[in-house]
Amino acid sequence: MTHRPSLGVCYYPEHWPEERWAEDARQMAELGLRWVRVGEFAWNRVEPREGDYDFVWLHRAIDGLRAQGLAVVLGTPTATPPRWLVDKHPDMIPVGRDGQPRTFGSRRHYSHSHAGYRAECRRITEKFASEFGGKVQAWQTDNEYGCHDTVRSYGPHDLTAFRLWLSERYETIEALNDRWGNIFWSMTYDRFEQIALPNQTVTEANPAHWQDYYRFASDQVVSFNREQVDIIRAYSDAPISHNYMGRVLEFDHFSVGADLEIATWDSYPLGFLEDRIPATPEHKVAHARQGDPDFQALHHDLYRAVGSMSGKGARWWVMEQQPGPVNWAPVNPAPLPGMVRAWTWEAVAHGAEVVSYFRWRQLPFAQEQMHAGLLRPDGKPSAVWDEVAQVARELAEMDVATETADVAIVFDYQSCWAWEAQPQGEINGDAFSHFDVVMRYYRALRKLGLSFDILPPSTTDFGARRLVIIPALYAWTESLRGAVDAFGGHVWLGPRTGAKTEDFALSDALWPGVTRSHVETFRDTRPLLRGGAFECWMDHVETEHDVEEFTRDGAPAWVRDGKVHICCGLPDEALMTRWMTKICAKAEVETEALPASIRRRDLGGRRVYVNYGAQTVDLHGEPIAPAEVRLVHQPEMNADNAPPTL
Amino acid sequence: MTHRPSLGVCYYPEHWPEERWAEDARQMAELGLRWVRVGEFAWNRVEPREGDYDFVWLHRAIDGLRAQGLAVVLGTPTATPPRWLVDKHPDMIPVGRDGQPRTFGSRRHYSHSHAGYRAECRRITEKFASEFGGKVQAWQTDNEYGCHDTVRSYGPHDLTAFRLWLSERYETIEALNDRWGNIFWSMTYDRFEQIALPNQTVTEANPAHWQDYYRFASDQVVSFNREQVDIIRAYSDAPISHNYMGRVLEFDHFSVGADLEIATWDSYPLGFLEDRIPATPEHKVAHARQGDPDFQALHHDLYRAVGSMSGKGARWWVMEQQPGPVNWAPVNPAPLPGMVRAWTWEAVAHGAEVVSYFRWRQLPFAQEQMHAGLLRPDGKPSAVWDEVAQVARELAEMDVATETADVAIVFDYQSCWAWEAQPQGEINGDAFSHFDVVMRYYRALRKLGLSFDILPPSTTDFGARRLVIIPALYAWTESLRGAVDAFGGHVWLGPRTGAKTEDFALSDALWPGVTRSHVETFRDTRPLLRGGAFECWMDHVETEHDVEEFTRDGAPAWVRDGKVHICCGLPDEALMTRWMTKICAKAEVETEALPASIRRRDLGGRRVYVNYGAQTVDLHGEPIAPAEVRLVHQPEMNADNAPPTL
Amino acid sequence: MTHRPSLGVCYYPEHWPEERWAEDARQMAELGLRWVRVGEFAWNRVEPREGDYDFVWLHRAIDGLRAQGLAVVLGTPTATPPRWLVDKHPDMIPVGRDGQPRTFGSRRHYSHSHAGYRAECRRITEKFASEFGGKVQAWQTDNEYGCHDTVRSYGPHDLTAFRLWLSERYETIEALNDRWGNIFWSMTYDRFEQIALPNQTVTEANPAHWQDYYRFASDQVVSFNREQVDIIRAYSDAPISHNYMGRVLEFDHFSVGADLEIATWDSYPLGFLEDRIPATPEHKVAHARQGDPDFQALHHDLYRAVGSMSGKGARWWVMEQQPGPVNWAPVNPAPLPGMVRAWTWEAVAHGAEVVSYFRWRQLPFAQEQMHAGLLRPDGKPSAVWDEVAQVARELAEMDVATETADVAIVFDYQSCWAWEAQPQGEINGDAFSHFDVVMRYYRALRKLGLSFDILPPSTTDFGARRLVIIPALYAWTESLRGAVDAFGGHVWLGPRTGAKTEDFALSDALWPGVTRSHVETFRDTRPLLRGGAFECWMDHVETEHDVEEFTRDGAPAWVRDGKVHICCGLPDEALMTRWMTKICAKAEVETEALPASIRRRDLGGRRVYVNYGAQTVDLHGEPIAPAEVRLVHQPEMNADNAPPTL
Repeated sequence: MTHRPSLGVCYYPEHWPEERWAEDARQMAELGLRWVRVGEFAWNRVEPREGDYDFVWLHRAIDGLRAQGLAVVLGTPTATPPRWLVDKHPDMIPVGRDGQPRTFGSRRHYSHSHAGYRAECRRITEKFASEFGGKVQAWQTDNEYGCHDTVRSYGPHDLTAFRLWLSERYETIEALNDRWGNIFWSMTYDRFEQIALPNQTVTEANPAHWQDYYRFASDQVVSFNREQVDIIRAYSDAPISHNYMGRVLEFDHFSVGADLEIATWDSYPLGFLEDRIPATPEHKVAHARQGDPDFQALHHDLYRAVGSMSGKGARWWVMEQQPGPVNWAPVNPAPLPGMVRAWTWEAVAHGAEVVSYFRWRQLPFAQEQMHAGLLRPDGKPSAVWDEVAQVARELAEMDVATETADVAIVFDYQSCWAWEAQPQGEINGDAFSHFDVVMRYYRALRKLGLSFDILPPSTTDFGARRLVIIPALYAWTESLRGAVDAFGGHVWLGPRTGAKTEDFALSDALWPGVTRSHVETFRDTRPLLRGGAFECWMDHVETEHDVEEFTRDGAPAWVRDGKVHICCGLPDEALMTRWMTKICAKAEVETEALPASIRRRDLGGRRVYVNYGAQTVDLHGEPIAPAEVRLVHQPEMNADNAPPTL
Repeated sequence: MTHRPSLGVCYYPEHWPEERWAEDARQMAELGLRWVRVGEFAWNRVEPREGDYDFVWLHRAIDGLRAQGLAVVLGTPTATPPRWLVDKHPDMIPVGRDGQPRTFGSRRHYSHSHAGYRAECRRITEKFASEFGGKVQAWQTDNEYGCHDTVRSYGPHDLTAFRLWLSERYETIEALNDRWGNIFWSMTYDRFEQIALPNQTVTEANPAHWQDYYRFASDQVVSFNREQVDIIRAYSDAPISHNYMGRVLEFDHFSVGADLEIATWDSYPLGFLEDRIPATPEHKVAHARQGDPDFQALHHDLYRAVGSMSGKGARWWVMEQQPGPVNWAPVNPAPLPGMVRAWTWEAVAHGAEVVSYFRWRQLPFAQEQMHAGLLRPDGKPSAVWDEVAQVARELAEMDVATETADVAIVFDYQSCWAWEAQPQGEINGDAFSHFDVVMRYYRALRKLGLSFDILPPSTTDFGARRLVIIPALYAWTESLRGAVDAFGGHVWLGPRTGAKTEDFALSDALWPGVTRSHVETFRDTRPLLRGGAFECWMDHVETEHDVEEFTRDGAPAWVRDGKVHICCGLPDEALMTRWMTKICAKAEVETEALPASIRRRDLGGRRVYVNYGAQTVDLHGEPIAPAEVRLVHQPEMNADNAPPTL
Repeated sequence: MTHRPSLGVCYYPEHWPEERWAEDARQMAELGLRWVRVGEFAWNRVEPREGDYDFVWLHRAIDGLRAQGLAVVLGTPTATPPRWLVDKHPDMIPVGRDGQPRTFGSRRHYSHSHAGYRAECRRITEKFASEFGGKVQAWQTDNEYGCHDTVRSYGPHDLTAFRLWLSERYETIEALNDRWGNIFWSMTYDRFEQIALPNQTVTEANPAHWQDYYRFASDQVVSFNREQVDIIRAYSDAPISHNYMGRVLEFDHFSVGADLEIATWDSYPLGFLEDRIPATPEHKVAHARQGDPDFQALHHDLYRAVGSMSGKGARWWVMEQQPGPVNWAPVNPAPLPGMVRAWTWEAVAHGAEVVSYFRWRQLPFAQEQMHAGLLRPDGKPSAVWDEVAQVARELAEMDVATETADVAIVFDYQSCWAWEAQPQGEINGDAFSHFDVVMRYYRALRKLGLSFDILPPSTTDFGARRLVIIPALYAWTESLRGAVDAFGGHVWLGPRTGAKTEDFALSDALWPGVTRSHVETFRDTRPLLRGGAFECWMDHVETEHDVEEFTRDGAPAWVRDGKVHICCGLPDEALMTRWMTKICAKAEVETEALPASIRRRDLGGRRVYVNYGAQTVDLHGEPIAPAEVRLVHQPEMNADNAPPTL
């Protein structure tokens, strides 16, 4: 499938005098933007009192944008219920894990399990859909599900819905007791109505209890979203999207994605570096103005996979691209000159259809007054203006064909929750997490110059790929096991993969013929005979298969069952590089030894290099400056097909 | 204005047998003390049951002190409401930011917004005033407003009072919505009754919401205090004071001070070093027995300014001076021998009328049993006795004239709240704060040997000064802008000064002709062309004025508009020293390069040096030992007027 | 008294199919185990609905174990009240210090002060006792009192019980006010019903208030336990035990122990190292697979003392011995090969009658699924199997005589609470604690090769010992003072000993003739004239006695009153070694300079050395490997009496 990448912006006409709207639209078009998102926080502006609608201004705003040839994404406003609505449903607000209410006064102040609020959301969505169904070019549901830790709520409505969810899942309380193992510590229930939320137990609750609560909370987001999708579909043929966040792991994005044509996400490289990436202070300072070299890339690949769940192609956007300093991280530096362009190119290189900047104009008041935009508060172009104009020119007339990568990584939300429920160890001082293990594999492979796909655990066919990495999978599913069995390439199983059953019990074996005698986690390391070491985690296994490598103590470290490779611990950086190089060689995947700060992404015959470092380095005999993007054609391509030089 | 500094002590006759009182009073007089504070925690002792008063013992205690020629400060007992009173008004207790009650069992267990408790306070104050109005030489209202984080309470009475306060400030809800910018995130209110306290929102509340809550909470302290003042004035001509604390920033001391003749504060240099000063562990260990060299001095200057707000001269005291180890810091060392005397001299050098030690005798029971006094629990003199006797002799017959300093620093409580509501960056790992920026300027200038005044933001005339520093002012007021415009000297504007409007929106410019393109905060630095660097903060500005210095990247770092200097970032220590030396030279303020551990303060022709280090160093060719005080006459003074050598 | 040490295991037949029970019992016997604990978490299995009992399966399980010659410990199931019971008494759940409920879903979800729950516990205990009184060989009450911070609860039932407890202790409210010193801060109460729990005061509550609350909470555990003991005694002559935890200090184990024939504890050396021992990261990594060399030993000695409180000999066991990686620490390494055997020997060397492993078979579900057992989840022997078999062989036919050690250390739970209520300083960044000071003395003396007894503060006679250490005693009791006065050996008083009265007021003197002028705590040190230094703490004293050593500043550091030595500060490691060597010499206690990683314990003519290091070191000219145990006869013994070589 081929697409032509374009640029967009998020715009809030309701914040500015109507007199300015036409000029805004004109400037957007002039800058080379193609898409504009509007409406997602405007509930009180379109319905200032219950049932008292005012859509006229929004029609005018959209018409003005359309008049400049701009395409419009309209967001449903359900992330910001107005105050009068909270007065009507005072118990719709979420409750924190600490049992305290989370009140009106910012945004996302709702529980997904409140039936009354859900009805209000259906009502306003239908209003939006019926008003604008024929007018807009795309939709967005709500805004950033899960942002501000809002997937999980611990109030009475959540509890009621959780019990219902459990009764549907298990049918009988005996089944639940049995599958949770409630015989332990006399935790047996007599009725579903006895089950509480797991957040205030004396010591840790049953991990099976947590895992089901996490599944439930995720499902509530999925069904909340689906209600809006179903309504919009009745009125509009335009594709529907949602804008996900970085490292929000509390709901299954693949499930939400199955209901949407387009996955989008909000990419704030500098804010994320400060706020969401476990990294040394040195790493943070070294990348303070560039962002982490791999975090965004991983999300690009992840959400490309999410965007393909509806089965209509791998459609994904960056809906909000950081354009300058933000307001919400502990410290908020400015991107290096050129970096916003580089981020844009990185997204395009991963197959983004649209990169849309947040926001059009910096707002001088309220919570985000320190958040940069393409325009400054005074309406003048901000520092990033020329970079955006440059990218717009560079992307003009460029068609991109997405293709399947040779290497894929399986990302699994249930595994995120499982290891959260039972970390058992620490990675660099933080609780063991699925995301961190995935990130380690991703980073190591990307430093070898590779491009990947990310795959959901529901994958049944790995296709013509050469190597699939399953970094830290909670429990095998029948489908995924089938995909492994049918696969012609190599499969690499990271630590803990296959450790549990679906019911959060220990599995009999990690892989047929690979049984664990015990697991250990540690602050030091377990060195390998041939160099490198495991850190954090080691599965001590007994196996009937070949052992490719041993620890110095003689324990199996890498077990090989044909083309399936079982890795018995978490490799440190040296071992990760050595092993990933080795497995790529076995799988006949070509690698490139890149300078430390350089990353590469191949797409449709193009090869994009970006320097994420603060220093100019040498790449293929030529200097590449910080934030510089270098676009070359892939070696195997003929010259006719080569992409333009930037 | 001239005064003769004297010494005092805090005394609790109710803790000791009456047989001992006369001996206590005799010893106080013998030691050379002049003032004794009594009564401020004795509510239950004077009113053990509602309406059942017993003032006889207090009359006898005061009479006994008076008989020895001692002057008496009487405190109203409203910081320690008795248990029976809390039974009568159970909802008078404060509520924490976490929504939890803060119960009876220590002190300050009241909300300033509880009308019932206010009535009780007026009643007991009137009782005190009418009983002792003709007998005592000074008054103290309550005790340490804001100590233990008690300015801000989040209970139902606070909410009701906040809504009332808002309705008085804004008159219409439309005005509030407009000035807060509630169009953002659909936060618009229909009625004042919909507004909640900002402490439990899902993500950050509107900073304008916080700022108004902070203002409200401060105003409640002001009006609470004023009620007592009005009552006392009806019965007594004696001056009224309140004892403020170190680094309590949650209420506007200038506003409270406007109602009081005397500002006093409670100076615990070693406790504060442990508990309230962001400093490296090395700094803490190096000053563990001397205290920070600048923290007390800053507060002396600050409260001298607060003490001048009533317009009757700059009257201020140290009401509680640490006399030995305290009980309340994480670790509690003993002051170096001589240090209590040095602290006393530092206070006198800043113009203190009285330095009063806390407390007379160490109490062997309850919360403060590990807090030293002038007497030990067994009634023998504690280690500090001879030092106090020495200071008493040194101060005898010494008259001090306070004078206006050449240099002034503007301190603004609203700015403390504003940057708390929206820190946007970190200074050495702590959230950006107004106090820390002020402290940096204060320390740098004091290391250059300077003496200062601190000025409130309500200042309309800087007088004959040469240099005024405005370190991190939230919003310009008309009065302060007028003062700058009319000023003949130099004005230095620190980072963030003028960044906001009164309504917590971004201002159009930091200063006429100095517009911000963007702001960034960072963990590394932004080096300057001529040496030194900005840390933490940088305003990127466009300007029509002269640029005195640039960053290495070519951005304006120091903009000069005539005698107004706009500093575009937070200077690191090297840059701060370089720039403060430079601006002093421009302003023709003489500086002295002091050894690192030495501080100096000039007052009325005297020049007082103190060594805050742990080593003897050379000062002007002579060794000065740790804790040593050296008193010389100012060079320009003639010998006749020289102060005595110590 | 002589005993023959044996091994045991904790077993949960209810978790496994009945078909497997016979095989389990057979394997246990074959492995050389003698004791099996059952039943303590099985409440819902024996009473699935109120009053609907099913003991048949438990009879069969016990019968099966007995048939293999195994002795049975039966635990009362009161640590895991079933869900239906919590439905019946919803307010039985504990409330945290933060005021939040601690709900059903794990274990220990009860307040000791809930009368209704107490009645349920008496009922089920009577059922157990009457069913199994004639059948089992020992009893255990409840499980791990205090685990998960469950001694102290802050709910309404706790409050009511606390008021009652206070009224019984003080009889009149005047007496309470007087002894607490409530005149301070007007904290006087009129009635016991006005007193609240001390957990939510605005600032610190009166330490006397805390201390009484802590005493109360401890007493509730004692009386809770005693109710079960009284019932069991009516039906059974078998000895009764409780399994204590490591470093649970919130209740007085000596008082609980006085009601029980046997003290047992649950020893998890690797979990404790991670979770309960303040230590440097280096220390933790260096001992990650061995555990702290002294922490378990200290508890062995402590619980031997607890086990002797009933006056029927010093009977103690390890009820739960870690057999492999656990699940509950932040990281969970595997013990070094041989280490489980070494731990077992260390316990035996301290006089343990039984060392019982937890658990028989790793359970593949619920909270502890990652906790190793003697069997793996698949029923195969785990890594530790052969070690246990080896110890079983080694211990066979070995009789051990416990004897009185030359050196004793006084351990006092009230002092733990007192210094928790008022730490006043920090030891290596943690609040000053009684336990940490005891640990420092214990470690220093143990590194000198000594074996000790631990003594309760109720001791009235130190016997024929040579040296008694009282590390940090809160308040002298008449009995302990009598013991010191009557003692022929040396007594060493650590810092803070004797600092308070029973009522939490300052005492007049630390020791007759040793008066404190003041106390200081610090982050640096106070060096001594002859080397070494005090860290953290120093009592500045005036004394009429000989001063053995001074600080460099000339303050008394070691005061000697005949054979009583008053130590005026907390010695750092160098000083501790120097002084403990010196006092041992004075007391004619022989010491041995051990290699750093080696520890020694003497018992009944045997001398057991264990290497806790990760390296092989030289001991008496022979290498001793990590985890190696070396058993030799004590030098003074004749060869006939020598123990066997391992």
